[in-house]
Amino acid sequence: MPRDVTLTRVRVTPIAFRDGPLLNAAGIHEPWALRAIVELETSDGRVGISETYGDEPMLRVLAEAQGLVLGLSPFDLNTMEERVRAAIHPVAGAVEFELAPGSHSAKNAAKVASTFEVAMLDLQGQMLGAPIVDLLGGRVRDTVPYSAYLFFKHAEHIERPYAPDAWGEGLSPEQVVAQARRMISLYGFRSIKLKGGVFEPAHEIACMRALHAAFPGVPLRLDPNANWSLATSIAAAEQLDDVLEYYEDPCPGLAGMAELARHTKLPLATNMVITTLDDFRKGADTGAVKVLLSDHHYWGGLRVTQTLARMCRLWDLGLSMHSNSHLGISLMAMTHVAAAVPNLTYACDTHYPWQEEEVIAGGRVPFEDGAVRVPTTPGLGVTLDRERLAELHEQYRRCGVRNRDDLSQMRKYDPGFTGRQPRF
Amino acid sequence: MPRDVTLTRVRVTPIAFRDGPLLNAAGIHEPWALRAIVELETSDGRVGISETYGDEPMLRVLAEAQGLVLGLSPFDLNTMEERVRAAIHPVAGAVEFELAPGSHSAKNAAKVASTFEVAMLDLQGQMLGAPIVDLLGGRVRDTVPYSAYLFFKHAEHIERPYAPDAWGEGLSPEQVVAQARRMISLYGFRSIKLKGGVFEPAHEIACMRALHAAFPGVPLRLDPNANWSLATSIAAAEQLDDVLEYYEDPCPGLAGMAELARHTKLPLATNMVITTLDDFRKGADTGAVKVLLSDHHYWGGLRVTQTLARMCRLWDLGLSMHSNSHLGISLMAMTHVAAAVPNLTYACDTHYPWQEEEVIAGGRVPFEDGAVRVPTTPGLGVTLDRERLAELHEQYRRCGVRNRDDLSQMRKYDPGFTGRQPRF
Repeated sequence: MPRDVTLTRVRVTPIAFRDGPLLNAAGIHEPWALRAIVELETSDGRVGISETYGDEPMLRVLAEAQGLVLGLSPFDLNTMEERVRAAIHPVAGAVEFELAPGSHSAKNAAKVASTFEVAMLDLQGQMLGAPIVDLLGGRVRDTVPYSAYLFFKHAEHIERPYAPDAWGEGLSPEQVVAQARRMISLYGFRSIKLKGGVFEPAHEIACMRALHAAFPGVPLRLDPNANWSLATSIAAAEQLDDVLEYYEDPCPGLAGMAELARHTKLPLATNMVITTLDDFRKGADTGAVKVLLSDHHYWGGLRVTQTLARMCRLWDLGLSMHSNSHLGISLMAMTHVAAAVPNLTYACDTHYPWQEEEVIAGGRVPFEDGAVRVPTTPGLGVTLDRERLAELHEQYRRCGVRNRDDLSQMRKYDPGFTGRQPRF
Repeated sequence: MPRDVTLTRVRVTPIAFRDGPLLNAAGIHEPWALRAIVELETSDGRVGISETYGDEPMLRVLAEAQGLVLGLSPFDLNTMEERVRAAIHPVAGAVEFELAPGSHSAKNAAKVASTFEVAMLDLQGQMLGAPIVDLLGGRVRDTVPYSAYLFFKHAEHIERPYAPDAWGEGLSPEQVVAQARRMISLYGFRSIKLKGGVFEPAHEIACMRALHAAFPGVPLRLDPNANWSLATSIAAAEQLDDVLEYYEDPCPGLAGMAELARHTKLPLATNMVITTLDDFRKGADTGAVKVLLSDHHYWGGLRVTQTLARMCRLWDLGLSMHSNSHLGISLMAMTHVAAAVPNLTYACDTHYPWQEEEVIAGGRVPFEDGAVRVPTTPGLGVTLDRERLAELHEQYRRCGVRNRDDLSQMRKYDPGFTGRQPRF
């Protein structure tokens, strides 16, 4: 019986990998992005893996939480969740990065449960000879579509810590279109998202219209990350409503989004005003949003994502997927759960094309026609390349970044940058 | 790979088993209760089993739905649900029995999906060597508590189709207490439910107070099945509020229950005004109920029950479990999902003590201290006794009952019985 196998060790390895000078509402990405690779070892010598946030508060809470899973069976997902819910609480005064809902300490329990769940499902799948998607009710699609996630960007980081990436500068409409062309030619994506909230709305609208002209019929999204005022968002909506498939978090707050919804026919999407099941309970009936961006890392796991999907169907909300900078373990977990969700109504977001490094054996996960093939091999379908993991951990040790801080990074480029939001 | 195994055949066997002359708001149980035993056969010769409603409309919809699962893998729960959702619809003019939410044709898709899901999970468990509960995230308890489900009853059926049961008459407070004593001494239940809505409220209140006196400290529930008016329910609440753990569906309708809730501190429970996820969406915020009675047979399955449980936690609602007359396959499915739900806040209802017959190998499922032990063997943990199945099918063929009709049955005892509701 699988019940005899227990979890005997939790190993958390923080890593840092190169990340581009990508602009957003808060500032600009630092040269190094952080993640934590979590391994759960079993009494019969198996290893289940997971990938999550690598900032210091997350590493602290993972260290705290280790004891909660030791001795459990990999099948004890419900007990694990209950233990985590009972033991892990928000931390007062934690560093929180507004654009990454996963950095909020209020989500500590959900983040930890999700981290353990993915590794435990990986173990279950290995033990049972079944891919994770089969433990989630089976695939409803064989490939999971992702979107081309465009960013305004500089050609290289101000510190020049390593050679510039291959993407070049991405500031003008022409450069943004070129970025999209390159990303689509490399990966085949069939929908396009632009991270906005960086420049004057007129410029960002011009970029969207340029994308619309260059890629007729391709669904487009714009995400100003709540960096536009309500008035700006209303005015911009008129110029975008023939262009966008959805309008993601243009202005701050549930009330702002609800008011905006009364002024536009564009579906409003969010990963900022509804980011927990409790937010859902309070916000779903307000009419503020029509599309939710799930993210198993902070909603509480793959099974909670399935619950969220059922709730979205009930409340007649569309469902897409959010991402932060991540590597292939996260991408595979995203792919398994997305394959199991019938009402995934939009291609998922992923930062993956912006990363060059990897910790999984065999190297980077391929996209085919903008989609990732759902694994049929046991568990997650990917394993660790320990040499690469050691290298990326060494990068973590040396890079000096311990918490994401796009604002301070931006001040290196523009000392007067206030970070005031909404800026426009 | 498990993926190579497909579902090759669906076999539906309607059965009838002896049922006592149990009184309720609609009338009285007929001498025969109906169920359908559903078997799914696989290409590798396995059989997964499930138990559901056996009324004619349900048999028709099951016949219609058979083709939807053929060719699927037992792991294709999500695809099965999607196919059923797309193909199975409510039937206009279907026979519907108000007290059994599972008889409503609006729930056809949920009922069919649930039936297939249990048999598919049974197959998954057999293939993987894991009990169903482990496919639902693992047990949070080793035994599942049930309540002693008392009924007002006659000593025997008016037609005397077979020898009277061992329970005798149950009409007076003394007889009801005696019924409870017998049921508790046989099975060890630690909470007690009385099906009310049968006699004048003063009599039923007297019965509850007699139970309270006879079993001090034992949680008690009363279920008048919406057969009391709002005014009657309000007046009765005052006489019950030191006695009940919850007050189940005393009066009809969500609005009625919401109004009643403003007049009593008793938690109101329901399996009548919120019986679908869509009802939940519309009703959870009304304050009408504090406790939901789940029932995988009509809510849509074991996984939907888990979704419901997460939603109950979010909306701060308690969770209990409803039952109709059923045999051991249903009892085991109920036990697996109840073991996987952390926030099962009350002992589950079951009619099982009222049944004497069984279709599972090894005979009737035992209760220990009012609880059923969660199986550790693969799948459901029970298999069919084909000889008994054939006998109970033969009873179905001969008994003449094809749809539950407690009202017509009651008119055999009392030709003037109107069935008007609420009666009191």
